[in-house]
Amino acid sequence: MLKHPIITLLTDFGTKDHYVASMKGVILRINPRCKVVDITHQVEPQDIVGGAFLLANAFSYFPEGTVHLAVVDPEVGRARKSILIVTKNYFFIGPDNGLLEPAAKKDGIERIVVLTDKKYFLPEISATFHGRDIFAPVAGHLSLGIAPPAFGKKAGDCERLDVGQPEIRGNRLTGRVIHIDHFGNLISNIEKEEFIRFIKDRPFLISAGKKMIQSLKRGYYEGNKNVPIALFGSGGYLEISVREGNAQKMLKVKRGDGVQISTKSQIPNPQ
Amino acid sequence: MLKHPIITLLTDFGTKDHYVASMKGVILRINPRCKVVDITHQVEPQDIVGGAFLLANAFSYFPEGTVHLAVVDPEVGRARKSILIVTKNYFFIGPDNGLLEPAAKKDGIERIVVLTDKKYFLPEISATFHGRDIFAPVAGHLSLGIAPPAFGKKAGDCERLDVGQPEIRGNRLTGRVIHIDHFGNLISNIEKEEFIRFIKDRPFLISAGKKMIQSLKRGYYEGNKNVPIALFGSGGYLEISVREGNAQKMLKVKRGDGVQISTKSQIPNPQ
Amino acid sequence: MLKHPIITLLTDFGTKDHYVASMKGVILRINPRCKVVDITHQVEPQDIVGGAFLLANAFSYFPEGTVHLAVVDPEVGRARKSILIVTKNYFFIGPDNGLLEPAAKKDGIERIVVLTDKKYFLPEISATFHGRDIFAPVAGHLSLGIAPPAFGKKAGDCERLDVGQPEIRGNRLTGRVIHIDHFGNLISNIEKEEFIRFIKDRPFLISAGKKMIQSLKRGYYEGNKNVPIALFGSGGYLEISVREGNAQKMLKVKRGDGVQISTKSQIPNPQ
Repeated sequence: MLKHPIITLLTDFGTKDHYVASMKGVILRINPRCKVVDITHQVEPQDIVGGAFLLANAFSYFPEGTVHLAVVDPEVGRARKSILIVTKNYFFIGPDNGLLEPAAKKDGIERIVVLTDKKYFLPEISATFHGRDIFAPVAGHLSLGIAPPAFGKKAGDCERLDVGQPEIRGNRLTGRVIHIDHFGNLISNIEKEEFIRFIKDRPFLISAGKKMIQSLKRGYYEGNKNVPIALFGSGGYLEISVREGNAQKMLKVKRGDGVQISTKSQIPNPQ
Repeated sequence: MLKHPIITLLTDFGTKDHYVASMKGVILRINPRCKVVDITHQVEPQDIVGGAFLLANAFSYFPEGTVHLAVVDPEVGRARKSILIVTKNYFFIGPDNGLLEPAAKKDGIERIVVLTDKKYFLPEISATFHGRDIFAPVAGHLSLGIAPPAFGKKAGDCERLDVGQPEIRGNRLTGRVIHIDHFGNLISNIEKEEFIRFIKDRPFLISAGKKMIQSLKRGYYEGNKNVPIALFGSGGYLEISVREGNAQKMLKVKRGDGVQISTKSQIPNPQ
Repeated sequence: MLKHPIITLLTDFGTKDHYVASMKGVILRINPRCKVVDITHQVEPQDIVGGAFLLANAFSYFPEGTVHLAVVDPEVGRARKSILIVTKNYFFIGPDNGLLEPAAKKDGIERIVVLTDKKYFLPEISATFHGRDIFAPVAGHLSLGIAPPAFGKKAGDCERLDVGQPEIRGNRLTGRVIHIDHFGNLISNIEKEEFIRFIKDRPFLISAGKKMIQSLKRGYYEGNKNVPIALFGSGGYLEISVREGNAQKMLKVKRGDGVQISTKSQIPNPQ
């Protein structure tokens, strides 16, 4: 039995209904010592890619042994499997639709278990709310120290999202906006290492929406009001931001839109 | 003293102010071992009926002995009583305005106590915030194991909401939309048992807004995009839903609007 | 080591991203026994004054020894200091930009420490997210019982907000709306004692927006629908409210707008 069991929750359920509370109740009935921590419940309805991004960015800050329960589940009640992924340091529970995979892969997948043993489910399984009827009770039992193989058979693999990676063509690196945060910051899928490898100290232009940005800033404070800046955010991704403003509103960019980095080798490097 | 005391909170206070946190602070000052779990704080302002629905749908998933504290209280400071209801498995605390009654009745009411002993209140009682000044400290003390009769005199009854039940006239069963959830699902007050008893294997038509639905689905996944479906949701009520869409927006239905089931005995049963 | 350590969080981060959860994870890695309680994460982006008001109104309800961690931090990554303020009963952690000062002053400041010892930070400090990288780990360590002087050097003073106080000119007391709550109640910076001292039993008129109010009510319930009333709210401030309505929408007032009390000594006192 874990000394200080923690279960995190990430869903697209919102917080105005009784859905999340029902899940917490189910968990606490099984393990009243458990701490239940919300990651977020404001994933856009059915947005598996958005949920996967948030989970992959949050999970690693929690203590080893934390159970991460995530539900964005448009196919609930259908054939898609319910899974538990055991990784190097954590457990991930949810539908097998790609939601868990980016986080699990980042930590190192050690075992995938298909949740089939009904002993660990609620006695009655609805066709519409596996978060409450399957995932929450499994998470509760897991947090009590029940070994992963008890929950079902080992699976060889799990579903993966086709999220796309940044592409390089000639002197252009093209990524996409993968998340827009509460402040309107546009977070791209371009990681710092990839950017540095591509730029190799050459001058560059970053473009998003109809705006061009010529340099990288260190922090939001270096921007001027009403002028978009680029920087590497706290998750390590290239981010477009407007100091004390909202980049999404100013640039009228939505998730999935392109972010391009162009180098012009012929331009003398100003450094 | 309960080994793992839990207090749940349900209010119409929203989460942008300090109101909910003040209540949690008051509880934790009295019982720092207590787990405080939010059901929701997004009940529409003063919507007692909406709050009662959510409480009645969430309470039973929590461990026995949980204290459910609910505040939707347009008459705060006035003559309405403050009550504690002891039920078979739980405790309910809040204003005596019908908010607690549907949940308490479902679990089986054993005793109603009018909260009058000021020893268990904050020293100063405002006329505007009994959640903080009366209900939270009473819940805290109750979670310490203080016996219900200590808080005040026994009452014979409590207020009840006039929520209305589905009605049958001839071959028509008429219910109402009692909750619209985060996904736009329209949840009616027609329970599965009642529906089955009424239909008796006859063919039927369900109508809501200006849409007609001819069959029941098992889960959301059985629907086609942009076509409303009917199914029994996770709470056991007849629900109108649109797969990966929003039934409220599509059908332009609001809470209180009718949901009708018509049977036509003369239509040959397609089964 | 505190027996039941509590850390509260107040930020402008919203709840749709992974930011708040990352902070909670960091805290729980350091002190898994800690209770983390949200005050709110819906402070308007970069609104230090609004955050300071909520913190000053919530902090004192929590148990002695509670660590209050607050982040509204437009200058993150820049020169502004990171501080810990030790007060008579609490600890406050956050940026030195005035956010913590009103609450800390109310409780009685005993020591201000500039957070400089990197041993208590995350190994890598981003320029954009000190909430996760500096404040959360310091709060976690503090909740373990590490003494405040360990975190850095003592400072003589901290930043203060210029929030303005109500002003008296002749027979007029002018305050301002400092907070508008979830219900649309307009909360002014006029405290009950100041009001009573100014009025001295004389008749008065309260004006806000284009509405005039002639008397004080005790609670919301004393109002008539669609008529604004004035009362002292649960925080002790003069508040304009509309029973079962929304004063902000009716009066079209925004934060910072004036609230005036006029006395006319010549008018016979109706009492």
